[in-house]
Amino acid sequence: MSPQKTLTLALAALTFTLASGAQASGLKPEEMIKYRKASYNFMAWNMGKIKASLEGDFDKAAVANAAGAIATVANSGMGALYAPGTDKNIGSEKTRLKSEFFKEPEKVREIAMNFNKQANELAKVAAGGDAIDIQTQFAKLGDACKACHERYRVK
Amino acid sequence: MSPQKTLTLALAALTFTLASGAQASGLKPEEMIKYRKASYNFMAWNMGKIKASLEGDFDKAAVANAAGAIATVANSGMGALYAPGTDKNIGSEKTRLKSEFFKEPEKVREIAMNFNKQANELAKVAAGGDAIDIQTQFAKLGDACKACHERYRVK
Repeated sequence: MSPQKTLTLALAALTFTLASGAQASGLKPEEMIKYRKASYNFMAWNMGKIKASLEGDFDKAAVANAAGAIATVANSGMGALYAPGTDKNIGSEKTRLKSEFFKEPEKVREIAMNFNKQANELAKVAAGGDAIDIQTQFAKLGDACKACHERYRVK
Repeated sequence: MSPQKTLTLALAALTFTLASGAQASGLKPEEMIKYRKASYNFMAWNMGKIKASLEGDFDKAAVANAAGAIATVANSGMGALYAPGTDKNIGSEKTRLKSEFFKEPEKVREIAMNFNKQANELAKVAAGGDAIDIQTQFAKLGDACKACHERYRVK
């Protein structure tokens, strides 16, 4: 599947699931919190691999693998993990999601679309293997992550 | 990259990192626990999507996406997250990994290689879209997961 097709499908899935909420995925709210945190932590591990490679001995294959992993998560339909009500801790599942997330669907969509775009672009650039291009695109992806953290994550 | 090449690289990475431990990844032991749990939970979410699709309305694109995500995690070099000493809870990071894991490197490698093989095979079969084939291969992947859980995970 082309990156463009993948992106379009991922965005369609995101839009759909943000609108339809919990029913679509069949998951309990506490499972949504658990799985989205897992998704972000899996990405954080892979972001760390790329950072380490850019700051130390550049390992082209490892960077391409990690960037591919991040794009895979970005394309996995995480919108399904954000049903209304999942901005509260549930049992042992804690979340730092601010309630504002559910009050600004257009802004959320804009931030999510940009994240998806930058993640897929990084996978593409990393497959090419140019360290300078990767550094530039990695920073853009970092900015896309930060845009959401700053607006919707409790400090 | 061909699935065979990907598999070979992943296994090489696994073997290397199981042998060299913490130094290779630069991660703290508590980060290893956190990231491997995240990786498994991200996979569990995607396993759940496939199960739901096989038991309900079969969604070929969703199944292929989820199977691809599982294979991505399987190919992400998780061996780097198993340094000796990470079979104990560290701070707030809890693990159910049994100490036996570090006493049987050959058995661990065998189980890990089979998991990797079955995950990549599921991605391939899911891309084909045949629900019966997917069901069969999904069961094989489940068995591969279970082999590790039963031997190395505290009940």
